[in-house]
Amino acid sequence: MSAEDAAALISNGTTVGMSGFTGSGYPKAVPLALAARIEAEHAAGNPFRVSVWTGASTGPELDGALAKADGIEFRLPYNSDPIARDKINRGEMNYFDMHLSHVSPMAWQGFLGPLDTALVEVTGITEDGDLIPSSSVGNNKVWLDRATRIILEVNRWQNPLLEGMHDIYYGTRLPPDRVPIPLVRADQRIGQPLFRCDPDRIAAIVETDVPDRNLPFSAPDESAMRIAGHLLEFLEHEVKVGRMPADLLPIQSGVGNIANAVLTGLVDSRFENLTAYTEVIQDGMLDLIDAGKLRVASATSFSLSPEAAARVNADMGRYRDRMILRPQEISNHPELIRRLGCVAMNGLIEADIYGNVNSTHVMGSRIQNGIGGSGDFARNAYVSIFMTPSTAKGGSISAIVPFASHVDHISQDVQVIVTEQGLADLRGLAPKQRAALIIEKCAHPVYKPMLQDYVRRANEQAYGKHTPTLLNEALSWHQRYVETGSMLPK
Amino acid sequence: MSAEDAAALISNGTTVGMSGFTGSGYPKAVPLALAARIEAEHAAGNPFRVSVWTGASTGPELDGALAKADGIEFRLPYNSDPIARDKINRGEMNYFDMHLSHVSPMAWQGFLGPLDTALVEVTGITEDGDLIPSSSVGNNKVWLDRATRIILEVNRWQNPLLEGMHDIYYGTRLPPDRVPIPLVRADQRIGQPLFRCDPDRIAAIVETDVPDRNLPFSAPDESAMRIAGHLLEFLEHEVKVGRMPADLLPIQSGVGNIANAVLTGLVDSRFENLTAYTEVIQDGMLDLIDAGKLRVASATSFSLSPEAAARVNADMGRYRDRMILRPQEISNHPELIRRLGCVAMNGLIEADIYGNVNSTHVMGSRIQNGIGGSGDFARNAYVSIFMTPSTAKGGSISAIVPFASHVDHISQDVQVIVTEQGLADLRGLAPKQRAALIIEKCAHPVYKPMLQDYVRRANEQAYGKHTPTLLNEALSWHQRYVETGSMLPK
Repeated sequence: MSAEDAAALISNGTTVGMSGFTGSGYPKAVPLALAARIEAEHAAGNPFRVSVWTGASTGPELDGALAKADGIEFRLPYNSDPIARDKINRGEMNYFDMHLSHVSPMAWQGFLGPLDTALVEVTGITEDGDLIPSSSVGNNKVWLDRATRIILEVNRWQNPLLEGMHDIYYGTRLPPDRVPIPLVRADQRIGQPLFRCDPDRIAAIVETDVPDRNLPFSAPDESAMRIAGHLLEFLEHEVKVGRMPADLLPIQSGVGNIANAVLTGLVDSRFENLTAYTEVIQDGMLDLIDAGKLRVASATSFSLSPEAAARVNADMGRYRDRMILRPQEISNHPELIRRLGCVAMNGLIEADIYGNVNSTHVMGSRIQNGIGGSGDFARNAYVSIFMTPSTAKGGSISAIVPFASHVDHISQDVQVIVTEQGLADLRGLAPKQRAALIIEKCAHPVYKPMLQDYVRRANEQAYGKHTPTLLNEALSWHQRYVETGSMLPK
Repeated sequence: MSAEDAAALISNGTTVGMSGFTGSGYPKAVPLALAARIEAEHAAGNPFRVSVWTGASTGPELDGALAKADGIEFRLPYNSDPIARDKINRGEMNYFDMHLSHVSPMAWQGFLGPLDTALVEVTGITEDGDLIPSSSVGNNKVWLDRATRIILEVNRWQNPLLEGMHDIYYGTRLPPDRVPIPLVRADQRIGQPLFRCDPDRIAAIVETDVPDRNLPFSAPDESAMRIAGHLLEFLEHEVKVGRMPADLLPIQSGVGNIANAVLTGLVDSRFENLTAYTEVIQDGMLDLIDAGKLRVASATSFSLSPEAAARVNADMGRYRDRMILRPQEISNHPELIRRLGCVAMNGLIEADIYGNVNSTHVMGSRIQNGIGGSGDFARNAYVSIFMTPSTAKGGSISAIVPFASHVDHISQDVQVIVTEQGLADLRGLAPKQRAALIIEKCAHPVYKPMLQDYVRRANEQAYGKHTPTLLNEALSWHQRYVETGSMLPK
């Protein structure tokens, strides 16, 4: 069927569960056709908006096009599209920012309402009618099982050799019927390579030949390299004192420049036989695999540069043995993250002096992307590490602030903070000890005296001395930034 | 051995892992003797302080006496003793406020340092040298397995028929050796009734005959009854629309007046065949058991009034079949809470308009008790409910505020908020929708117009419109309370 005909099956006010996770495996034709249809309806004076559920972030052909058409009424669970972000922050789109591990069980619970359409990119359809998953798995199993109507996009651009890389586990249930998930190692397969799919519910199959939104990674800058250096030193120390095995524990890594610097740093490290249990396979992991350092990468999606995507596609048969893509209810499951004892490494927007972390909101009000899977990993990790440059926007924003303008990760879930300035190991410390260490090790020299001054006065004047807070000053740095464009006083 | 001789085995600067959870099963003689020894040393001009690890809160003979003697250098993971609290909030005691499920694995990880002494109350010692646990299990297994030296208090006051009630699971490990925990129902036993104990490490056995710190529960007031009413209506609705089975899912309930009102409300409800998978067996659960409504209560401790304790002790043989006490690493394990799909019901200090919950800090600085197990349950529950009267201190404090002065439970982990005013079902809502509903349903009428005014101005003026926040006003209610004794303007 044409994308236009398939898009015509989607009605105003309905909910569409789409594939897609960090710009991989999202549908690329029907959302564009739907956006065109929505724009035409709007031009004719008719209302037309849909609710969009995905795995995580998608691409410009999906979130970008639909947001531009003003076609999204409600969006979950994660977005990184700039047009959609702008809509959300202008108050024009309802966005439900969720733990990624919560999406599948909550979709089944039912309070989110019915799922009218599943719109899922696949690599192929077998003769038996099973579906070969694409470059991300995300929530596709749930969408396919739960939706009233299924629209498939078969993308010829995806490498047919992806078949066999996926591990789709069909053992999850709603309580009281849940049982242990039998995974005990990152390299273990507990499911099957293909999606089941009820043929009676397939309403359309659309063929495409379009690449994923593979964005170039900029080479790690000096700040990222220094962060990676501090982190590797910490991991080496943990191994040396016997708190971690020599092959570490399964690595979880957020995406981006710093995460890639860490992975690149591991290539030159003494660590061998590593595993990753994470959300996303990114460029740095290919280097680790090629260097013979990374035994297996378990994830739910790819997030590669165009060059890295070409590398994987050219050598898929080999990489496939070292990669497993799972549903995000498995890649992000608290049970499994806790059991495996992941080393969680995530980015942040700001941390306060007590180590509460804001991963999502700029100046307390504007959402950047969303919490994603960081909460699934941070709380259940063997060690939970957050990484950031100590300043942003040319030094006008300090990543270490007196008081977080929004909290995604409470101090209990934040055990190590790293900036280019240094690493603060906060494990086992009380709040005031945490504050002293975070400021000493992580704050930028320009902001350090300001933070020390705040702490000194808070210790004298605050209402309580367990977590001393100056209520009338706590958010003043953010307010100053909003007013003057800098957290630094004039 | 006498308590004094046993206390003499504990040295300045060492760490003691003590039994005790919500005022049950804590050692009652050696800590008092240790406090006397510390006071004598201090009088002689000698330093003497210890680090104290427990299950959760204990009693006046432990935290109270040791804090009074200025004998605690460092305390984890939870405290409710008023003298210790005061020390902490004066900045005189380091307090590491932890998720209760984190204690056991973190103690094993090693970064907390060595555990010199285990000081554990037991009900008895078998001829084989195994230990019959007392009225709480807490972290006793870890302390006994990990400590260099063991001091036992055998408390004759505890009912010998407690033997057989406990289920001590010996299958937990550090990664990479962790395996699935085989528990799939709240009433299931997966371990053994007794603690193992290495006799070579037993340094002292002290006999006692002292009751637990069993505090009278005040009868639920009208506010608590109304909260319970809203909550039962919600649960009935969830069953009616098919989102929960007729016998619900395992209940987790915090302690206190409101929690007991809910449990009492369940006695008169239509629900049958209930189960509890929770931390604490409290008075209301006895009523539920006696009414034939509660099939089993799984917990790690008792927290009873003196009358209820007498009831249990008089009829232990019968109650024992309906109660299971487990290590807190099992009662609070994210894997199990998620699998069972608990209905989590916890109290709070304040919630902000977006549904971020502060469970621990008064006016951002003073700790009340600690996060306890609320984070273990809230994030992993099938539905996470927080309950509170809409005001405190005679109306001078609103439990619903523009901005939480501390965050323990992020909005993603807070699905339902209940006050005596009403219930806000926040599932699937975006931040501004949450704010409107929380204010409409939960805020006290005196504070409602103030909150609505804040929201209206924030929606106009804030830096972003996803989670509109007025940075220079967000904490002004708390500041006003600190300055004037009320959040209400003069």
